[in-house]
Amino acid sequence: MTYREDVEGIDASILMHPRVWEASGHVENFTDPMIDCKQCKSRYRLDTLGDAIAEKKKKKVIETVKNNLKADGIKSELLEKTLAERPTVNEQFEHLLEVKELAFDVLAEINCPNCGTKGQFTEPRSFNLMFKTFIGPVESTENVVYLRPETAQGIFVNFLNVQGASRQKLPFGIAQIGKAFRNEINTKNFLFRTREFEQMEMQYFVKPAEDKKHFDEWKERRMQWFKNLGMTPEKLRYHDHPKDKLAHYAKEATDIEYEFPFGWGEIEGIHNRTDFDLSRHQQYSGKSQQYFDDETKEKFIPFIIETSAGASRSFMAFLVDSYSEEEVNGETRVVLRFHPKLAPVKAAIFPLVNKDGMPEIARKIENDLRPYLKVFYDDKGAVGRRYRRQDEAGTPFCITVDTQTLEDNSVTVRNRDTMAQERVQIDSLLIYLLEKLK
Amino acid sequence: MTYREDVEGIDASILMHPRVWEASGHVENFTDPMIDCKQCKSRYRLDTLGDAIAEKKKKKVIETVKNNLKADGIKSELLEKTLAERPTVNEQFEHLLEVKELAFDVLAEINCPNCGTKGQFTEPRSFNLMFKTFIGPVESTENVVYLRPETAQGIFVNFLNVQGASRQKLPFGIAQIGKAFRNEINTKNFLFRTREFEQMEMQYFVKPAEDKKHFDEWKERRMQWFKNLGMTPEKLRYHDHPKDKLAHYAKEATDIEYEFPFGWGEIEGIHNRTDFDLSRHQQYSGKSQQYFDDETKEKFIPFIIETSAGASRSFMAFLVDSYSEEEVNGETRVVLRFHPKLAPVKAAIFPLVNKDGMPEIARKIENDLRPYLKVFYDDKGAVGRRYRRQDEAGTPFCITVDTQTLEDNSVTVRNRDTMAQERVQIDSLLIYLLEKLK
Repeated sequence: MTYREDVEGIDASILMHPRVWEASGHVENFTDPMIDCKQCKSRYRLDTLGDAIAEKKKKKVIETVKNNLKADGIKSELLEKTLAERPTVNEQFEHLLEVKELAFDVLAEINCPNCGTKGQFTEPRSFNLMFKTFIGPVESTENVVYLRPETAQGIFVNFLNVQGASRQKLPFGIAQIGKAFRNEINTKNFLFRTREFEQMEMQYFVKPAEDKKHFDEWKERRMQWFKNLGMTPEKLRYHDHPKDKLAHYAKEATDIEYEFPFGWGEIEGIHNRTDFDLSRHQQYSGKSQQYFDDETKEKFIPFIIETSAGASRSFMAFLVDSYSEEEVNGETRVVLRFHPKLAPVKAAIFPLVNKDGMPEIARKIENDLRPYLKVFYDDKGAVGRRYRRQDEAGTPFCITVDTQTLEDNSVTVRNRDTMAQERVQIDSLLIYLLEKLK
Repeated sequence: MTYREDVEGIDASILMHPRVWEASGHVENFTDPMIDCKQCKSRYRLDTLGDAIAEKKKKKVIETVKNNLKADGIKSELLEKTLAERPTVNEQFEHLLEVKELAFDVLAEINCPNCGTKGQFTEPRSFNLMFKTFIGPVESTENVVYLRPETAQGIFVNFLNVQGASRQKLPFGIAQIGKAFRNEINTKNFLFRTREFEQMEMQYFVKPAEDKKHFDEWKERRMQWFKNLGMTPEKLRYHDHPKDKLAHYAKEATDIEYEFPFGWGEIEGIHNRTDFDLSRHQQYSGKSQQYFDDETKEKFIPFIIETSAGASRSFMAFLVDSYSEEEVNGETRVVLRFHPKLAPVKAAIFPLVNKDGMPEIARKIENDLRPYLKVFYDDKGAVGRRYRRQDEAGTPFCITVDTQTLEDNSVTVRNRDTMAQERVQIDSLLIYLLEKLK
């Protein structure tokens, strides 16, 4: 259910016309620099090669590269200057890999992280991260299509369709949840970098003069979204992109980062994409992408504020954030402290014992709740063990039918986090739970 | 929300290990026979070539093929016999194309449906309908992966994961809605045959001896599902597959067909897949796919009853089925008579005029309903026109704030199908609508 009247949903194609990806810049720019070890054939992304190398080694390599340049006074001076702007060894090392001429010097000095052979790398070359396939049986260039590497472009090319059908006016958004595919050379950190993943994006179309205002609002709103769903505030931060590191389409950009067990990582990006995308699609498709403002009678290409979240990454962030272990009566209790909205099971129903009519009552409660809530019935083992199983699954409420139920139609409702139990009348269970789950 | 406690949902990968598709039989069998016209390079599926040829011509071709065989007494007799089993010209023609030796004779006699050249076709060859792509930058055979051509296999390979995590016992099901991809040579009939489409499938795992019972139940249940959602019963029928036409994995199969404007077409298939899939995955993966029955202490591979519906096709069927035109006061009224559950907008809210506080009340109603229902606010043009717009979008209820609202806090609720209006108190609107939408 959408709570905003100014946001429409769509489900665009995964396979789109290849010119979409020329217009977007992906055919040209969506590449990683790649090198191979000639000895063991291991493949590395040049820009992340530093991750596998010790800092001490990096320092040494930086010195060597500097020495190699000593003879050339001007170049040497320039290098010293740029390195001085980068305070950490990691940043300096990364910079050397970015400059083609210097990358060769670096590669000559380092060992393959896999086989240890020194300086036996191929030349860096560009590798496009879009998966490609062929429409029809002939595998020729004119039949190439790409699996979408992001859901955003599907929104841009449908902008006027959605606007016309929904009769929305600026500012308004189009949102989409869906699969995207990137042929990553190195996947890593479980769900953090995978070749197939789920995005959840919203593209907000605004008047050009109002871009800053909307960017700031969405930046704030999206951070609040994660916090409202219970993510630990101290593990969330913004990473604003410096002007000289902005993507080709962006005027302003910030990441929302989460502190995973393996370090800080982006879970969402908020970008001011200006009129770059719609202008390019207008140019490549030959179809006007202009919006007509019926108040001012002006025609113009809207600016786009993008909120692009990784659904898979956010899922992982919520998962690790909610995992906790605590000591209860000398035993370790494992609890997934999911916000009730995120818990896959909302309530579990137990008969205290498997007799005296308790299972029948418990089953009836289960069936009455099922149309409204995801519920789980369990009659196996001691109730204490059943509670623990639900704690591990993050179920916020456990309902137990006990002997008192047979007398007064009340059940206990046990809270996952406080472990406190409350007696609730069966008749008011649904309202009780819906209220707590809001 | 799932209403059945015995069905779990999953979201499997689109790109899976290529051996999954060897085990499933798709690498070997998921092919269409394909021919090209040597003259104009048009490409055709051999088995559907007859669609483009007039019946008179087909009769003539059948006679010619029979004459060609006259010299060979035994073959000729055999052909006469098989043709006699097929009462229609179309079926006879189709049969000739299925027999390789005879297909040559047929192709020599017919003209290219595109350029008209006679008998200039390439030899029929198999074309695999799976889209393929490459993991990593090297486009070699060992890096080939396929886009899933069906969601079913993703359920089979996750069967034991889901069963273990959900603690389900036989019989139980795993359901999934998701994209599938088939590199169709000829797409047709709008959403009916596309290369990218949405499936909704449920695989029900049962004890082998209970297969027939569950097959019959699901066959009935699935037909009822379409009827319950308002599809015209006369436009729905079963098509049971004859034993000699069953797919390699099926013991029994039936299609649910809908009568589209272009003819009857399958919208769902119910199949008894036996233990074929899990046995093959056990064989190809080397991992046991057996289920342990803790009552009988037996281990066995369950049978699978599949309900495989096209979400895109069903969507189109619901769309064309609900489209209607009728004469109202001398004008044509276009109505999408969607079942309220399927209507994209549940209620529209109009202020009768844009003054006297009516817009404020209407906006308040909109905001109060929005968290629960997809609603639409419209204040443009005469109310009659606004009703018509919602009729065309299939919105079941239109709520109008009028002068009487200002006096007694009631609004009119207008029913899309009967066009009757009822006065309802604003306070009870939500309950009123939820009750009608159930």
